[in-house]
Amino acid sequence: MDKMRIIEVKQSVFADNDADAEKLRQSLKEEKTFLLNLMSSPGSGKTSTLVHTIQNLSKDLKIGVMEADIDSDVDAWTIAEKTGVKTIQLHTGGMCHLDADMTRQGLTELGTSEIDLAILENVGNLVCPAEFDTGASKNVMILSVPEGHDKPLKYPLIFTVCDALIINKIDVLPYFDFDMEKVVEYAHKRNPNLKIFPISAKTGEGIEAWCDWLREEVKNWNQTS
Amino acid sequence: MDKMRIIEVKQSVFADNDADAEKLRQSLKEEKTFLLNLMSSPGSGKTSTLVHTIQNLSKDLKIGVMEADIDSDVDAWTIAEKTGVKTIQLHTGGMCHLDADMTRQGLTELGTSEIDLAILENVGNLVCPAEFDTGASKNVMILSVPEGHDKPLKYPLIFTVCDALIINKIDVLPYFDFDMEKVVEYAHKRNPNLKIFPISAKTGEGIEAWCDWLREEVKNWNQTS
Repeated sequence: MDKMRIIEVKQSVFADNDADAEKLRQSLKEEKTFLLNLMSSPGSGKTSTLVHTIQNLSKDLKIGVMEADIDSDVDAWTIAEKTGVKTIQLHTGGMCHLDADMTRQGLTELGTSEIDLAILENVGNLVCPAEFDTGASKNVMILSVPEGHDKPLKYPLIFTVCDALIINKIDVLPYFDFDMEKVVEYAHKRNPNLKIFPISAKTGEGIEAWCDWLREEVKNWNQTS
Repeated sequence: MDKMRIIEVKQSVFADNDADAEKLRQSLKEEKTFLLNLMSSPGSGKTSTLVHTIQNLSKDLKIGVMEADIDSDVDAWTIAEKTGVKTIQLHTGGMCHLDADMTRQGLTELGTSEIDLAILENVGNLVCPAEFDTGASKNVMILSVPEGHDKPLKYPLIFTVCDALIINKIDVLPYFDFDMEKVVEYAHKRNPNLKIFPISAKTGEGIEAWCDWLREEVKNWNQTS
């Protein structure tokens, strides 16, 4: 299937990842490609959220996906089969995060000239990916209801560096002691500007509000200079 | 409350963590202290599983707990208040894992001479903690039902280095597409010797079998030389 390719990304040779990320962000802006960096714990529902997101946005935007994983390719196949968009599997060879240069290697393979929205599904990990700027236009994280509402207290950095927080699996709220008011309070204490979208990637609830925000952000990215 | 203390652990100066871990393991063996390294994703239920485990084992064993966190202390307070055992909060200062020397700093504070079973709750992360030997007698991980049964495919290393896998939150099995047979099959493909304990830290189901195994391992550790 030519919609799905696997590439092994090599650790960056750049000492200054922040400067390299800024350079990548600028070149993406010139090409009018919006890069979304999606982070979360393993099992929070990144892949199923992406499937809904692509189905909602693909009539308006040309989308490409980069699935980062330590060494499997199950997510990339799921995305390619369910959405038909071009999908690249990035193997990090054991690395717990992506940096800007690894992201660039994926984007080169994806071919940004024909892509409006490139989505990077980062390695499942709340700690390390938050420490490395990938060059993304916006950073978004998913927290799922079963993980608990105390996560902004315990993993502060990722809530600080993100522009939006998706709270997934709201369909199982009745079965967990998850306090939605508290998670919003804790998250906003870390980052007062954080947009918060409660969704269920199972039922589709809340997907539209999240996609409306993302569509608007892509539009703004392409208009401003 | 003197049952709970916070210490800031510093990154190791030892170049060879494996050798340092082996040294720590030997000295713990001489002191007849069993060190359990407990790993999982954020929100899998490490802390509530520990509360049940301590309640089950504290009549037979003198237990001490080290809670590693990037910078909060919510888990240490929970453990100290609910179980009364001596609890140390280890702050990693942003680090995504503990190494053997950081673990040693915690054990020194805990005072191993009066402890049969020292439990290290590692940083919530399926990637990095698996790469660093802490000097533990046994490594155990928790995977919770909402995280999905495909995790042994995507995070292979942690399943390989663990001696036992606790599958938590089986009380919510009816609400998730989690295939117990598949997770057992995938996990055993990574590690044929892995012991697997399905539990619910909410209802207490399965805790006894897990605690029986752990009690036996502590006994064996203290008897062999």
